[in-house]
Amino acid sequence: MKDLKKKILTSVADDLVAIEKALEKNLKPHFDLVAQTARHILFAGGKRLRPLLMVLAARLTGNNNPDAATLAIVFEYLHAATLLHDDLVDDASVRRGKKVAHKVWGNATAVLVGDFLLARSLTIAADTGKIKILKIIANITENMSQGEIEQLNRKKDLDLSEADYLEVIHYKTAMLIEGACRVGAIFCDASAANENALAQYGYHLGMAFQMADDLLDYTADSEVLGKQAGADLREGKLTLPLIHALQNAGAKDRAGMVDTILKDGFSRTDFVWLLDLLNAYGGIDYTQKKAVAHIEKAKIALLAFEASQTRRLLEDIADYALARQV
Amino acid sequence: MKDLKKKILTSVADDLVAIEKALEKNLKPHFDLVAQTARHILFAGGKRLRPLLMVLAARLTGNNNPDAATLAIVFEYLHAATLLHDDLVDDASVRRGKKVAHKVWGNATAVLVGDFLLARSLTIAADTGKIKILKIIANITENMSQGEIEQLNRKKDLDLSEADYLEVIHYKTAMLIEGACRVGAIFCDASAANENALAQYGYHLGMAFQMADDLLDYTADSEVLGKQAGADLREGKLTLPLIHALQNAGAKDRAGMVDTILKDGFSRTDFVWLLDLLNAYGGIDYTQKKAVAHIEKAKIALLAFEASQTRRLLEDIADYALARQV
Repeated sequence: MKDLKKKILTSVADDLVAIEKALEKNLKPHFDLVAQTARHILFAGGKRLRPLLMVLAARLTGNNNPDAATLAIVFEYLHAATLLHDDLVDDASVRRGKKVAHKVWGNATAVLVGDFLLARSLTIAADTGKIKILKIIANITENMSQGEIEQLNRKKDLDLSEADYLEVIHYKTAMLIEGACRVGAIFCDASAANENALAQYGYHLGMAFQMADDLLDYTADSEVLGKQAGADLREGKLTLPLIHALQNAGAKDRAGMVDTILKDGFSRTDFVWLLDLLNAYGGIDYTQKKAVAHIEKAKIALLAFEASQTRRLLEDIADYALARQV
Repeated sequence: MKDLKKKILTSVADDLVAIEKALEKNLKPHFDLVAQTARHILFAGGKRLRPLLMVLAARLTGNNNPDAATLAIVFEYLHAATLLHDDLVDDASVRRGKKVAHKVWGNATAVLVGDFLLARSLTIAADTGKIKILKIIANITENMSQGEIEQLNRKKDLDLSEADYLEVIHYKTAMLIEGACRVGAIFCDASAANENALAQYGYHLGMAFQMADDLLDYTADSEVLGKQAGADLREGKLTLPLIHALQNAGAKDRAGMVDTILKDGFSRTDFVWLLDLLNAYGGIDYTQKKAVAHIEKAKIALLAFEASQTRRLLEDIADYALARQV
């Protein structure tokens, strides 16, 4: 897997440089604190997955536009804005091994700098002059906030079904990734068929990406993850591994799992015990299979395009989304 | 003054009905909690000043567009979004006599519903198909968040100058009102001259409106105000009456004022004493005169238009902005 990551990073090295430059250049706040807080979240070792996907989607249409990297950062700013607000909403402490912004500068600054980044991305998107792009971004923002609200509203809700979970991750994660791919296509005046193929790719990649994330929260090494494993459970977020295992567990195990979910805080022993049950009742395996199926669909969507280096790269990214350790 | 208010309200009764309908109709969230929280802030007896100004600005151009009321609610949603976030930022307790949203539903919901309302306004604005309108709204949002951050950053900052204060209120208040007037003009394809005249009107009205607000925080009856007087001082916000008085006070009085500003919490006696000094050193009077000057300029800007019932109404609103008790 390290080889796949290396291969991808080598292929997109120039794009990543262009994206980093655009991220810094477009951070034009009038006041110092905004820049400082925005940089804290923006330059903390993010993968730049969303802007990269936009740039590659644009390139795959065959009408490469040199300004793609500038527009692409809209998706990193939007992502950073939601991270600032979500860390506050979830009362998280650490992200990517760093103290979260609201613990450094306080809630107020995190809220307002999130608002600023959201607004900044709109300004950049408006500069394209394409109303269709702005409609998509407005729609994504609207739905992301609703997805987060629903997730918040259903914390520790044992009735959360797989369908509910799928809706939440569609809203909070897949839509932004889908949007990045679709906007890349629109920016390069792709045909409707190609635009939809790229949107499909982004949607399935986004769904798989979130499922992989939710799996990592149970299976990853805390040090690699940059935050403590079990964070979702600690925050009362029920994700697919747990939802599936709860559904299939016998009455006694289910009761034990429910106790662990509902109590405030749990020990390392509780967590290891729960993880065993997630494995025993197929929660881990089921989620992995679901994610694999989405990745397959993502790659099938790309078949609307001729084979090319860019298509291959998007396929590799899809594979990597599943295999990543962090 | 009650007569002026009554006169205005009678003249705009139909517009207010159309705005209320559009506010309710466009609140299309997918999840219940969003609707509930958004309604709490949206239907708490707001004056609808911003959407009303957009509708009247549109009408003044002579090209009345029946869809103006729908677009106008963008400015109420944006306003509500900033109130949700600002009440949290300021840790306020009561607004318009009601418990603030984050005290009812928690910080997380207030943050996310604010985000939702912001996004919802973008979607509505995008439906106009006018990229210029979206650029203005993105710019307003960007600057409003920066104005709030600057205000937050300079709480209890005794070096805050009149110029700093003017910049903050321009960003956090005047820009949105200016934007509402400008967008009304653009929506009706007004000439550049008319667009700028309406923007000027909005800018000056907005500046005066915030100055009047800052005066009311010292002079209004708490019951009429719907929150406790002295809230700005309690939050460490230095506004023009205080900035001006500090500048003109003798060393002894200044030291006493500084003590009151810097200490956590103050008694009713402290507040009355401070208010006497604001009067004695001309802070109240100076702010009032500044506000009057802005209102004069707002009315002068309207002279770009022929006399009409709508122009008269906008002049009345300017007068009322100064004279209002709440």
